[in-house]
Amino acid sequence: MSSEDSPRPGARAPRGFVDRRGPALQIERRLLAAVSSVYESYGFEALDTGAFEYADALGKFLPDADRPNEGVFALRDDDDQWLALRYDLTAPLARYAAQNWGDLPKPFRRYAVGPVWRNEKPGPGRYRQFIQCDADTVGSDRPEADAEIIAMALAGYAAAGLARGSVTIRINDRNLLNGVLAANDIDHPGQRLAALRAADKLDRLGPGGVADLLGAGRLDESGAFTSGAQLPARAIDAILAFLAAGRGARGPTLDAISTVIGRSQEGDKGLEALARLGAALDRLGVSEDEALIEPSIVRGLEYYTGAVFEAELRPNGVSATDFGAIGGGGRYDDLIARFSGERIPATGFSFGVSRIAAALAMSEAAGPPPRGPVVVLALDPQLMGEYFAMATELRAAGLAAEVYLGVAGMRAQMKYADRRLAPAAVILGEDEFAKGLVTIKDLDLGRVLAVGVRDNAAWREERPGQVTLGRSDLVAEVRRILGAAP
Amino acid sequence: MSSEDSPRPGARAPRGFVDRRGPALQIERRLLAAVSSVYESYGFEALDTGAFEYADALGKFLPDADRPNEGVFALRDDDDQWLALRYDLTAPLARYAAQNWGDLPKPFRRYAVGPVWRNEKPGPGRYRQFIQCDADTVGSDRPEADAEIIAMALAGYAAAGLARGSVTIRINDRNLLNGVLAANDIDHPGQRLAALRAADKLDRLGPGGVADLLGAGRLDESGAFTSGAQLPARAIDAILAFLAAGRGARGPTLDAISTVIGRSQEGDKGLEALARLGAALDRLGVSEDEALIEPSIVRGLEYYTGAVFEAELRPNGVSATDFGAIGGGGRYDDLIARFSGERIPATGFSFGVSRIAAALAMSEAAGPPPRGPVVVLALDPQLMGEYFAMATELRAAGLAAEVYLGVAGMRAQMKYADRRLAPAAVILGEDEFAKGLVTIKDLDLGRVLAVGVRDNAAWREERPGQVTLGRSDLVAEVRRILGAAP
Repeated sequence: MSSEDSPRPGARAPRGFVDRRGPALQIERRLLAAVSSVYESYGFEALDTGAFEYADALGKFLPDADRPNEGVFALRDDDDQWLALRYDLTAPLARYAAQNWGDLPKPFRRYAVGPVWRNEKPGPGRYRQFIQCDADTVGSDRPEADAEIIAMALAGYAAAGLARGSVTIRINDRNLLNGVLAANDIDHPGQRLAALRAADKLDRLGPGGVADLLGAGRLDESGAFTSGAQLPARAIDAILAFLAAGRGARGPTLDAISTVIGRSQEGDKGLEALARLGAALDRLGVSEDEALIEPSIVRGLEYYTGAVFEAELRPNGVSATDFGAIGGGGRYDDLIARFSGERIPATGFSFGVSRIAAALAMSEAAGPPPRGPVVVLALDPQLMGEYFAMATELRAAGLAAEVYLGVAGMRAQMKYADRRLAPAAVILGEDEFAKGLVTIKDLDLGRVLAVGVRDNAAWREERPGQVTLGRSDLVAEVRRILGAAP
Repeated sequence: MSSEDSPRPGARAPRGFVDRRGPALQIERRLLAAVSSVYESYGFEALDTGAFEYADALGKFLPDADRPNEGVFALRDDDDQWLALRYDLTAPLARYAAQNWGDLPKPFRRYAVGPVWRNEKPGPGRYRQFIQCDADTVGSDRPEADAEIIAMALAGYAAAGLARGSVTIRINDRNLLNGVLAANDIDHPGQRLAALRAADKLDRLGPGGVADLLGAGRLDESGAFTSGAQLPARAIDAILAFLAAGRGARGPTLDAISTVIGRSQEGDKGLEALARLGAALDRLGVSEDEALIEPSIVRGLEYYTGAVFEAELRPNGVSATDFGAIGGGGRYDDLIARFSGERIPATGFSFGVSRIAAALAMSEAAGPPPRGPVVVLALDPQLMGEYFAMATELRAAGLAAEVYLGVAGMRAQMKYADRRLAPAAVILGEDEFAKGLVTIKDLDLGRVLAVGVRDNAAWREERPGQVTLGRSDLVAEVRRILGAAP
């Protein structure tokens, strides 16, 4: 890794890492600020842990359970211990909670926003670093804690700019499927896991494909065979009936589930949890449209132990594009016990930051397009002081402003101002300076005219493209331009 | 790195990494938000690059020039290239600017806020990950670009909460010392570097020690000998005269420097740059107290090519503690050429985030202590719905609120509310509910009484510790408590 061999290194970002500036970054920053503010209003406090964890602390909670400790960026520390960059924000929380449990207010509610890293093959839209934004309640096994997190997530989406009603959260409870299995005397952990994975494929394979996976196995179109869970027909029928029990409204869905899953301790536990969760949602003002109970929701991660939730953007919401799940979470009561031995229940939700940002970028909900600073042109070297004085005056009035600091002619400086999305350019030459005048060019107007509003003579009359006025009117005129967004 | 060997991993953060929550984190977040907002008002846009760079792109710009590529966290990628976590935000900017120069508005002004990593031996207050906050102008060699960044840095400190006047920025130009050396016919790069390093030790060793290092060498108290730059006595005298030329105000200092550094192209270039920089500072409204020219300022990094600046908190500013430099920067005109061969001048400033946060934590400037959410106690399982309805009502009124979600008696719940720094607790039992009443306990009052305001009977009269009132008065009463901060 010596740099001596190549005197001029290539200027490129490493594979799978992306540089971001401009509107895309601004949308994400606004989104995270809005969501953080909602989290705080629900009593969640910020927690910031380091990028590294000891690799054994990350353990086997990777999304791909078959490749423990792969998919992370790991290196050996001076003391020979393996460090790995966190791949999510849940594993560091579990470690933190176990480490500090005695000193924390309990239940402990925290949110965290920050990058996570996945050492995977990069691809289009698939990066090796991305932002996650999580909220979790640790130390409460009340279903009301799940309900509160669901209500908060919905408030977060609304604050981010996704109109209330455009996001639906689907809720399920792992204990329900386990209840169906228990009622059918299926208690082998391998079979239970296989049944969970089969249910997760309902969307893609339909009931027939799921039935195959629950039974003898499935031959796909390519000729590949997936072996099945080997469940008896009676159990398969019961599972399919359970997966089809969604009825829209929460109450009727729970009733329908109750009639198909049979009696078992686990099933009853799931039913009671969802009933309490639903009652809390009612009192939290969450409508039936915003949060449904949907038995076919699985969520991939194995560590969930109870309620699971998944948020989707309705196709008729912001756009017709299918963004997939834009967030999700659930209850994981055993994750912290891994460290301490003490069972500490927990539940949380993770926002799909990049998908939400992509949806916002396609909608008008992202707010007005970002505007750059007012650019004071630097035309006469003798007047640099005056240019700085004007920029300082604009900033003192709360308006973003800068002096052009390159060396270029007027045309290039105007082009610069345009690329910076400046609302206005301030122009001052020797003559104007001597007369106590200044010229202000309305660049917003130029941009509007350029995109086709050429005939609106009255509006143009009212907003002339360029005016020369008294030096003391600088701030007022720029304010007028900024206030008169077309 | 298998986790199979140890079924229960230790719950601990890796060495040198710190977990943060509560007031410390909140102060830093406020600080960064305030500074970012100032940057934007000066026309700097946000840029976000990934945590990793190719190791050769980071190159030899590590603070410790003798250990290139050490001190970073590096690992080999699948394709055998070495990746390293960034150790500052300047190297990634240089890589980004070189990579995208053709497409950027020029000059390119960007700011960046994010973690950097140093693979060093951790110690007290010395972490292996910390936040940096940088602003840079790329593509302008005007001294006015340096002036603007200095003015912006001062505005940033003020916005962060350090009172205007408590921060001083000291400015120097590398070309001045080089001018002294040139005027004395010292042009060997090794001698020049040794002279720079000797000058950097003026604070610690005084003029005598610096003279030793410039000449034959220095024997320190432990008996260790540092070889000197072997400069002739005439050159040493000139350098010491230069280092002592500070006169407080910018103009007189420049005059004094001008009389002691002799004539040289480099020296003249430095003098002209600082004269223009000073003129711009005047017009940017930066007082003589806020920004001094100080010939003894060096800044450690070798890559600076012109102006250098260093910010200090005045001892009589916020507190008597010496926080050292709380920020610094300078002009580095050759860093980007390393990639592209094209010389692209640049100048920038880096805030010393953790030191500023430490200073703020010791001052009242950090604003009122953070307050947690209003806590609605969960005393009666039958009333959970009502508790949620009240929390929802408070949040709808813009007040942070949460329902206690553990399982505990009243006393433990009150203790929880206190630990959460809740301003108030909302108490509702069966009787009150039946009568349409609610009880609100003022916890701010309790905290004030606990720290000694025991005799202020009138104030206590006005703010009784606990009131029972109509359910519809809930929001108004909490607002009253929040508004009546002692």
